[in-house]
Amino acid sequence: MTSTDGRQEWLTVADEVAAALRADAAERDRAGAEPVAEVAALRRSGLLAITDWGTQQAVTRVVGAADANVGHLLGYHYLQVWRRWLFGGAPLDEGDDHLFWAGVSNPLDAALALTPVAGGFEVSGRKTFATGASVADRLVVSATRVDTDEKVTFTLDARADGITYAGDWDNIGQRLTASGGVRFDNVRVPAERVLGVHDAASPRQSLAAIAFQLVLAQVYVALAEGALAEAARYTRGTTRPWFLSGVDAATADPYILAAYGELVADVEAAGLLADHAAAALGEASDRGDDLTADQRAATAALISSAKVVSTRVANQTTSRVFELCGARATAAAHGFDRFWRNARTLTLHDPVAYKAREVGAYFLTGEHAPFTGYS
Amino acid sequence: MTSTDGRQEWLTVADEVAAALRADAAERDRAGAEPVAEVAALRRSGLLAITDWGTQQAVTRVVGAADANVGHLLGYHYLQVWRRWLFGGAPLDEGDDHLFWAGVSNPLDAALALTPVAGGFEVSGRKTFATGASVADRLVVSATRVDTDEKVTFTLDARADGITYAGDWDNIGQRLTASGGVRFDNVRVPAERVLGVHDAASPRQSLAAIAFQLVLAQVYVALAEGALAEAARYTRGTTRPWFLSGVDAATADPYILAAYGELVADVEAAGLLADHAAAALGEASDRGDDLTADQRAATAALISSAKVVSTRVANQTTSRVFELCGARATAAAHGFDRFWRNARTLTLHDPVAYKAREVGAYFLTGEHAPFTGYS
Amino acid sequence: MTSTDGRQEWLTVADEVAAALRADAAERDRAGAEPVAEVAALRRSGLLAITDWGTQQAVTRVVGAADANVGHLLGYHYLQVWRRWLFGGAPLDEGDDHLFWAGVSNPLDAALALTPVAGGFEVSGRKTFATGASVADRLVVSATRVDTDEKVTFTLDARADGITYAGDWDNIGQRLTASGGVRFDNVRVPAERVLGVHDAASPRQSLAAIAFQLVLAQVYVALAEGALAEAARYTRGTTRPWFLSGVDAATADPYILAAYGELVADVEAAGLLADHAAAALGEASDRGDDLTADQRAATAALISSAKVVSTRVANQTTSRVFELCGARATAAAHGFDRFWRNARTLTLHDPVAYKAREVGAYFLTGEHAPFTGYS
Amino acid sequence: MTSTDGRQEWLTVADEVAAALRADAAERDRAGAEPVAEVAALRRSGLLAITDWGTQQAVTRVVGAADANVGHLLGYHYLQVWRRWLFGGAPLDEGDDHLFWAGVSNPLDAALALTPVAGGFEVSGRKTFATGASVADRLVVSATRVDTDEKVTFTLDARADGITYAGDWDNIGQRLTASGGVRFDNVRVPAERVLGVHDAASPRQSLAAIAFQLVLAQVYVALAEGALAEAARYTRGTTRPWFLSGVDAATADPYILAAYGELVADVEAAGLLADHAAAALGEASDRGDDLTADQRAATAALISSAKVVSTRVANQTTSRVFELCGARATAAAHGFDRFWRNARTLTLHDPVAYKAREVGAYFLTGEHAPFTGYS
Repeated sequence: MTSTDGRQEWLTVADEVAAALRADAAERDRAGAEPVAEVAALRRSGLLAITDWGTQQAVTRVVGAADANVGHLLGYHYLQVWRRWLFGGAPLDEGDDHLFWAGVSNPLDAALALTPVAGGFEVSGRKTFATGASVADRLVVSATRVDTDEKVTFTLDARADGITYAGDWDNIGQRLTASGGVRFDNVRVPAERVLGVHDAASPRQSLAAIAFQLVLAQVYVALAEGALAEAARYTRGTTRPWFLSGVDAATADPYILAAYGELVADVEAAGLLADHAAAALGEASDRGDDLTADQRAATAALISSAKVVSTRVANQTTSRVFELCGARATAAAHGFDRFWRNARTLTLHDPVAYKAREVGAYFLTGEHAPFTGYS
Repeated sequence: MTSTDGRQEWLTVADEVAAALRADAAERDRAGAEPVAEVAALRRSGLLAITDWGTQQAVTRVVGAADANVGHLLGYHYLQVWRRWLFGGAPLDEGDDHLFWAGVSNPLDAALALTPVAGGFEVSGRKTFATGASVADRLVVSATRVDTDEKVTFTLDARADGITYAGDWDNIGQRLTASGGVRFDNVRVPAERVLGVHDAASPRQSLAAIAFQLVLAQVYVALAEGALAEAARYTRGTTRPWFLSGVDAATADPYILAAYGELVADVEAAGLLADHAAAALGEASDRGDDLTADQRAATAALISSAKVVSTRVANQTTSRVFELCGARATAAAHGFDRFWRNARTLTLHDPVAYKAREVGAYFLTGEHAPFTGYS
Repeated sequence: MTSTDGRQEWLTVADEVAAALRADAAERDRAGAEPVAEVAALRRSGLLAITDWGTQQAVTRVVGAADANVGHLLGYHYLQVWRRWLFGGAPLDEGDDHLFWAGVSNPLDAALALTPVAGGFEVSGRKTFATGASVADRLVVSATRVDTDEKVTFTLDARADGITYAGDWDNIGQRLTASGGVRFDNVRVPAERVLGVHDAASPRQSLAAIAFQLVLAQVYVALAEGALAEAARYTRGTTRPWFLSGVDAATADPYILAAYGELVADVEAAGLLADHAAAALGEASDRGDDLTADQRAATAALISSAKVVSTRVANQTTSRVFELCGARATAAAHGFDRFWRNARTLTLHDPVAYKAREVGAYFLTGEHAPFTGYS
Repeated sequence: MTSTDGRQEWLTVADEVAAALRADAAERDRAGAEPVAEVAALRRSGLLAITDWGTQQAVTRVVGAADANVGHLLGYHYLQVWRRWLFGGAPLDEGDDHLFWAGVSNPLDAALALTPVAGGFEVSGRKTFATGASVADRLVVSATRVDTDEKVTFTLDARADGITYAGDWDNIGQRLTASGGVRFDNVRVPAERVLGVHDAASPRQSLAAIAFQLVLAQVYVALAEGALAEAARYTRGTTRPWFLSGVDAATADPYILAAYGELVADVEAAGLLADHAAAALGEASDRGDDLTADQRAATAALISSAKVVSTRVANQTTSRVFELCGARATAAAHGFDRFWRNARTLTLHDPVAYKAREVGAYFLTGEHAPFTGYS
């Protein structure tokens, strides 16, 4: 979260990655394989090593618009690297900055068990929905010490002995996010891999949960942006004017034009709100241990606002774009339903009504959202 | 369209058919086979032989809620049988009342060519989007006489020599409706199979186009009803209460309850409007050649109203039900996305904005919708 | 609630009353006087004496579309007369059938105190929001016996000694409904005026609360219908085509036409749902003491559905019609804002979110709405 | 549009002005007088002299949230001063920077006639909807030369001989904006008051039309912000919990909280989009004669996006806030309907469907909005 390290150059790289992803997004969605090739492309591109917060967010949107699976993986990767810093900022090992990171921490599962052993710990247990873990190089994992009940966060080599991936992610959307379960059987955790102990009262540490919420909002916006871009290509190139329209091109149909306008305007507003929330989180993060509960609450409320708006916009846009393209756009070959399936799946991450409630409570009474795994 | 021939009994039969369809609807959608077994089940059930208009409509909704593919096929079947009557009411051949009928008549394609030969005609050409034709027993087909340019409607044995089915329907929704193309190569049309010549100015004949619009509206409503029913089963049986909700069951969550209420109320209203439009069309049909242009226009406007409302309700409901079930309901095994995919595909049949326009024009100025293949 | 006593004739009368009301609705709204003249017109018209349930409902809608204040008063009047029957059906006194009835029973206020005296009771206390009472001939009043704590319902001459009307209704909408407070100072209640004692467990008696909800829904629909009719007159007669529209009349503007269509279709659906709920309530009422809790619950859920849909439709339609008329339609002289002000005021009668919740709970779990003053 | 000249200080001043306006906004709306006192308050505050573009926009929102009439007048004032600069940037006369400026230029009226006379011109004719003119110190006026047909823009003393104000603004909203007609009878225009001749092809000059659109969008957002703030005060201080809610304060009602959250989030997004469009216009304006048609088109599209979103948000928010406050909030004394009346009136300035169309056309095909009085 420091200087903007050549944002424009990175956006150019992101555009190239996005173009390549877009070219076969529908086929890859159909195939539904583990995103091994996609993550390899991210590694090669250099995007994984970006350290500037704002650039990370912008790149997540660009890549996410082309392929929301990869945008999701990339956005989460940045957070996993950044989470190290929430515990004091241990630098990455030499060479690690081009590796792909994922996390294992579904708050609704039972905690992993962390047992002290000579030179560190051993971790055992299962977790579900560990997005990206099975294709990752490094993991950030949280577990609870069996002796002290402390929640400890540490890193692991994703290929370490004793880690097995269930490969059980088979959902209607975000099919290429490798979001299956992980099992740990006495996996060794060297002491130097420990990032820190969870402090439930720390505003700084509490930023992790809302950072994930923010990345979700960014990917929701990206989904809407991607759907609009894809629809526009189709309308321009393929859609035939309706015989009652009185115009000779679909691009001149008054209803198509106005509908695009309404959707585009809404997506622009949603994107700005996500950017605004991202900037607020960047500032909050820069405060480090000086972050106050009040600033944390204001930041959380903004991120929840972004989540509320982008949830609506993503679901609405990815469904309505079909009306801008016409009946033939439902041919399976186009795979345009992937945008809605991705949006519908990812926007259910946690119930948006409770985010709206948070925003309302903060606005109405100044109530701070509690520090939870989701807020 | 006369007496209600035991509606309650037929609804019981429809419920049984629906229950059987519901049991493996997700698997069948995934398999995406031609609906041979489904049509066979319809034949066995006796539902194909219903002659009462209101009962046909009610049964279409019940079956369509369980499987919109089959509801679509069934609703269209009734119309094909009824279309015979628009040309004067030739009775069905003995035994034909348990056969499955489909039509071939996409108005946006070039017309089929009908050439007079001894004892009748020969028909040649191609048509796309012939829902149900490839699994039908009998077809209703329209073609243009090469000598007189008259548009003639006739019936064919769906297995007649010279008819080939492209099997090229592969779309994101309504996957089991066999809506692919048909090719006719010098297919013989005996003179006695001719139903009549199209009279572009006849209010009575013009009912065909709006009858198909009505059936679409009925299936849209059915899709919303089906999605709600399926969601409710899931919410009751599987959804876990959100940890911030303060309630111990998802069925007590205030947001889930109110969201169900909003959707249910909207679907009820849409269903009543479709029923109301169906009753109006039944009355218009009963007028036969006495049908006036004014009554036809009023009926068309009501059907378009039903289409506008049911389009909105179907797309909205089939997407929002996921919020009532939670994230795990996106597991591919449940196949809940089929409701939205079906709705999204079928509601694009023709652009709804032009239906809204028709309703508005009729309300504002009394303008009659033109007689076209879609209105 | 039996035979349709000449519905068509009554609708013709209602049309005449409506036409007269419409002519100066804006002026009367501005003046904001007590609706003395309006109630006198109702008395003269004979509409007050209609006894058929369905006709009452239809007439309420026709009158309400022209003037929602008067529709509200009329719909409530029918319910007050009908409420007598909930306690066993005492016939109206000779001549009373042309009188105007209102009620005094805001459930959120403290109860009125009913003290036994020789030959009957005396009632004392205050009530707010007694729609129509100050311009009524007869009142239906509920009060609590000070000796037994029973809730007793009785009728009063609205001009009886000891009744004073606060005249304190001054709200942004429904300005002519005389919905101010009433004060009772030892008002004498002859024993023969007692209708009965409230039985909190009686499905039959519980119909009163939902009957009021139904009438509200009918007036909401009427408001939307009235706004559309008034807007259409303006669009046809006054609105100029937008200079970028490419058409030479506002009635040919594609956006205006489609927007009318969407609103009209929605209002039609809402109206049918209100009618459907009304029919259900008519049937429930006809069951008398045989009404089961299950049928009552089903009826209540339908009425709440109608309330949910008509609330949305009324607020949306009365606001959006301005877009169909253009900027000059905001001239105060037209008073078109009265539709929205009326809708906005009346739809707040009780919070619609709790109605949506009721509908959802009934659909999801079969939960019966509790018997309260609002459900 | 240069450096931010002490934005924070100006925002503090704006807050003070806003607080004073808010205190009696409802009463002043009811009285409906010419905004003489309001404009005097603006003069005293110093806000009229702000020269920084971004600060002008921010201050317009703050004042507009308290009183949209005054926000509208203030936002337009800044544009009138800035319009001088579109013709080359003549500095204001000494002392003029504390005067209140308004414009006379409704594009839909016939043009004013400008006749050359010795030492300048004389102007005659009528214009409608000249917001603020009747309470202004100085006017910016456009008229067409009778000899050359050129459209000329010039300034006038608003009290000059021959100018009469019709005082005919009597609309349901924005009642205190003095938006009535103006008549010019041979009003003398000294040559040195001429700002320039209209160049219909100049991107720079074309910014005027979209700048007014932007200010409208800002006031729409302000209306929504103001309505939410006022509603929150009411909910916190007055609204009683619904008896079925199970909570003991309206501020804990789940539906009220989530509804606030949805509205707040939407308004935040709309506000950011308006700010973003304002920044784009500031940059475009800074380009002066170097402004390209492409940058102008991009800026126009952003402003139209802001208009589309803020129109929806303003109308929706100002109506829905009543649901957050409850039935008693419709008491006329509160005057809460003024937010909706103002929003409804001002959002009809020009039809928003054509703005959506512009946004869609620019997105889909890159089509530039034409240079008109509204785009």
